[in-house]
Amino acid sequence: MYRSHNCGELNATHINTEVTLSGWVQKSRDKGFIVWVDLRDRYGVTQLVFDEERTSKEMMERAQKLGREFVIQVKGKVIERASKNPNMPTGEIEILVSELTILNKAIVPPFTIEDETDGGEDLRMKYRYLDIRRNPVKNNLIFRSKVSMEVRNFLSNNGFIEVETPYLIKSTPEGARDFVVPSRMNEGEFYALPQSPQTFKQLLMVGGMDKYFQIVKCFRDEDLRADRQPEFTQIDCEMAFVEQEDILNIFENLTRHLLKEINGVEVDKFPRMLFDDAMRLYGNDKPDIRFGMEFGELNDIAQHKDFGVFNNAELVVGIAVPGGNAYTRKEIDKLIDWVKRPQVGALGMVYSRCNDDGSFKSSVDKFYDQEDLAKWAERTGAKPGDLVCVLSGPANKVRAQLSALRMELAERLGLRKPNEFAPLWVIDFPLLELDEETGHYHAMHHPFTSPKPGQLELLDTDPGAVKANAYDLVLNGNEIGGGSIRIHDKETQATMFKHLGFTPEEAKEQFGFLMDAFQYGAPPHGGLAFGLDRLVSILGGQETIRDFIAFPKNNSGRDVMIDAPAAIDDEQLKELSLQVTVNK
Amino acid sequence: MYRSHNCGELNATHINTEVTLSGWVQKSRDKGFIVWVDLRDRYGVTQLVFDEERTSKEMMERAQKLGREFVIQVKGKVIERASKNPNMPTGEIEILVSELTILNKAIVPPFTIEDETDGGEDLRMKYRYLDIRRNPVKNNLIFRSKVSMEVRNFLSNNGFIEVETPYLIKSTPEGARDFVVPSRMNEGEFYALPQSPQTFKQLLMVGGMDKYFQIVKCFRDEDLRADRQPEFTQIDCEMAFVEQEDILNIFENLTRHLLKEINGVEVDKFPRMLFDDAMRLYGNDKPDIRFGMEFGELNDIAQHKDFGVFNNAELVVGIAVPGGNAYTRKEIDKLIDWVKRPQVGALGMVYSRCNDDGSFKSSVDKFYDQEDLAKWAERTGAKPGDLVCVLSGPANKVRAQLSALRMELAERLGLRKPNEFAPLWVIDFPLLELDEETGHYHAMHHPFTSPKPGQLELLDTDPGAVKANAYDLVLNGNEIGGGSIRIHDKETQATMFKHLGFTPEEAKEQFGFLMDAFQYGAPPHGGLAFGLDRLVSILGGQETIRDFIAFPKNNSGRDVMIDAPAAIDDEQLKELSLQVTVNK
Repeated sequence: MYRSHNCGELNATHINTEVTLSGWVQKSRDKGFIVWVDLRDRYGVTQLVFDEERTSKEMMERAQKLGREFVIQVKGKVIERASKNPNMPTGEIEILVSELTILNKAIVPPFTIEDETDGGEDLRMKYRYLDIRRNPVKNNLIFRSKVSMEVRNFLSNNGFIEVETPYLIKSTPEGARDFVVPSRMNEGEFYALPQSPQTFKQLLMVGGMDKYFQIVKCFRDEDLRADRQPEFTQIDCEMAFVEQEDILNIFENLTRHLLKEINGVEVDKFPRMLFDDAMRLYGNDKPDIRFGMEFGELNDIAQHKDFGVFNNAELVVGIAVPGGNAYTRKEIDKLIDWVKRPQVGALGMVYSRCNDDGSFKSSVDKFYDQEDLAKWAERTGAKPGDLVCVLSGPANKVRAQLSALRMELAERLGLRKPNEFAPLWVIDFPLLELDEETGHYHAMHHPFTSPKPGQLELLDTDPGAVKANAYDLVLNGNEIGGGSIRIHDKETQATMFKHLGFTPEEAKEQFGFLMDAFQYGAPPHGGLAFGLDRLVSILGGQETIRDFIAFPKNNSGRDVMIDAPAAIDDEQLKELSLQVTVNK
Repeated sequence: MYRSHNCGELNATHINTEVTLSGWVQKSRDKGFIVWVDLRDRYGVTQLVFDEERTSKEMMERAQKLGREFVIQVKGKVIERASKNPNMPTGEIEILVSELTILNKAIVPPFTIEDETDGGEDLRMKYRYLDIRRNPVKNNLIFRSKVSMEVRNFLSNNGFIEVETPYLIKSTPEGARDFVVPSRMNEGEFYALPQSPQTFKQLLMVGGMDKYFQIVKCFRDEDLRADRQPEFTQIDCEMAFVEQEDILNIFENLTRHLLKEINGVEVDKFPRMLFDDAMRLYGNDKPDIRFGMEFGELNDIAQHKDFGVFNNAELVVGIAVPGGNAYTRKEIDKLIDWVKRPQVGALGMVYSRCNDDGSFKSSVDKFYDQEDLAKWAERTGAKPGDLVCVLSGPANKVRAQLSALRMELAERLGLRKPNEFAPLWVIDFPLLELDEETGHYHAMHHPFTSPKPGQLELLDTDPGAVKANAYDLVLNGNEIGGGSIRIHDKETQATMFKHLGFTPEEAKEQFGFLMDAFQYGAPPHGGLAFGLDRLVSILGGQETIRDFIAFPKNNSGRDVMIDAPAAIDDEQLKELSLQVTVNK
């Protein structure tokens, strides 16, 4: 038996108990006549003591030679500590060691295993197994496990069945590029790894499974952006005989359950916002509503006043920056530079200072009088002491730019508080999205999403205006989940594919299995998928997904720790060449 | 709202309640003046009634046209049924329908959706989404979900953390062939899909995670035998600071928890059997101990009696067949034919009838007298009325043959009772296994398994005799789990690789990341993995894994329902060719 207790549980009630502990040497302090060693395991740190009076010379010498991260086992008696440490759960006691066994030595780690480490990110990624020993990373992994477990508890208690869907499947394009897997059993043919279990869960609904969920890996062979992993984890859910309202209610309850169990936060009923309103008020389909700074559209009051920039713009829109009038001229110039950065892309910014005496001072005083500027303030909700920032241009672009500015300022003003949670539903998304490059429409959610009742006809005349039974769950400015009520009849699905540019043959080839299934009595159904990685990082108060993953991959998709992928060996190469040749 | 209740919950307490139900038309009986419809959903079946007196003519006509598997919604009043059905939870009531809505029509299904269906296996596999509507399959999927949830509950309550390990990894050979995944981000390089998260969980132990588990998909690109899927699910566990005893105890408790929660069965402490004893007594490393029929080795009493077949054999071994003396001569001849089938491979079988009067009648009376045969009976535990069956030949082969006969006879005698559970641990497995074809030794469990203390030296002189800290959990003649205490220091691991025929360079290339990690303070650790698919099917009282998987694959590895894998398209082909060429 390697241990009787762990390193986090002993306290004054254990004094005089004989215990056995195992763990890692966190650090040691050698005063010559006395040696203290901090022994660490997953559960905490316990102080060991060796001293001249009570410890044999031989053991004293061995204790003095213990290096950082040595793995040791000790037996000894729990004694009261002379100088107690109230900040440590085990701070009242220490272990007077009577037996010391070195279980494994350790060479010097490339960075210190402390909460605040001296290791840079690259080094910590390379030695991820050492990084995981550090409390912040270890606790994040434990946190992730807890969130998964609470999700499963809630869904199981609400009648959902976890069903495992296959990973080696037939390719069904879903927007991103599939990873493919050569089949050596069937030369020239390839499996795909699923981008999501979408079609499988729909088939389960056709199969009467009614309430399905799965916490499941999904795969996308695409360029990696920050915090995007080629494999990611989804909480995938689907229900039959439901309307949008049923789905919103159950997953709102799930989210509320998580916030309560994980974060100890009680949240009221989630607000619901139309997609169009989200875009109008926040320039964004995932608004962070922890703070105000709602957009005020100024076209009717700012245009036709001889200011050509505004007059020629599709949209003139502003926000009020709380306390922004305190900015110096230089600070405002820096802000203007910020919105002109290529990542934001504005051509300039107009502003109006709201003075404490109720007067205004704008960068366009030549064109707008005090009465005009008072209207701007009113429209953006600006109070004396605030700053009104105004952008103009094509509506879609200018909304995105002002949204970026809103988020940046909120960050600077400390309005994005990590421990405050403001969830909301964004509903009534457009069914289709115009690809401005190709001029083609594609499904905004996915091709299985149903249009709102009675809007199918609009597909021919005004496809961009068709709204979908689609919804996103947004938390603190992040989309943590999204879903839709699906199409459940063959005809509507065929119409949908037609409008997405599929020939009937292509639709049959790729999705015939699903449309065939719809003929055998498909129930109305819909669902939702949460991105577990992001959900966990937001509940955990951090934006970095990587901190909550045991073995992240770097930007090229390689495992940072085991240096994958590997070059293929000769035998495999031969087989693959053969397949490719045969297929030609 | 599609329903106020489900189809399995209404009973006499609901009489006079107005309800809304949705589901599938299981069947209908049309008597002209009255129509009964059985409405089915995941939860049960409820009888609907339409009759001339109380139903409008228009609705009556629509009810008469409802086909099997139509998806409908009804509103109506719960009324007492005239002829009650005590075998149905809803058998006291029926619904007098006031509104009928057809949600989706259905074409005639290719087989009947009944517990006993007319559909052959191929058809049911092809239309798996219809097969899943049948109670036996549906209940198996729900059962599987319940087992997974109970596993998670137990492990979470015992301090285990579920950590997700990556699916796109660097290839680390583990016996079977890896599936490979071309990386389009890194031309000419390939990921592998994990055969198990073995090395990752060991790195988590080095990382101090202490108690890890994961219910995880594993992949093997190998020939498919019956009920082998190219992807399968593993309950993967690992612990640090443990000895074999700790692991056996915790996973014995897990198994006992499952048997109790899932099957309502209380099981005593699991017996532990040495691998050598299992082979000697049952000819098998996964003995079914629900019944006796232990092997009796007869060399000392059956050899040197002028019967050349036995005299020349390495092993003469028999079993007692309970009540087997009742077999006719013809039946015994058939049994002899059975052991001579190529799948079993015995050259013949000797038998001795144990008559009720205490006398014996054997097929080798010429060589053995009553006293000899009495010893055979004693050695195999045969009683009057039994039949002693004896095989002889090379020890390994004859044990396997007699084990096959033992299992076959037990099956025929009804001794393998699906609702009886007899778990045991088989321990002290050999470390290495001789590949008779190549003459090389390979790791019986895997190369990370530690030898028993003090046996490392034997590797040079008698590798086949080295025992490992390896154990299997056996249930009803099936290996449901297996594991080992791992090597946790670089030197021993290097020695192990050397004995497995790796050059130091190969070992470094393939497993350097693990051996490097061991240098930074690796704790003693070990673990176990359960095959979830098999565990679930055995707890469910069935041997067929496929019944517990939503979307099985056929023998070529294809999904039986969506006909994967797909032929690769031209664009993908071009990219792959490029990669393969570059790599050359």
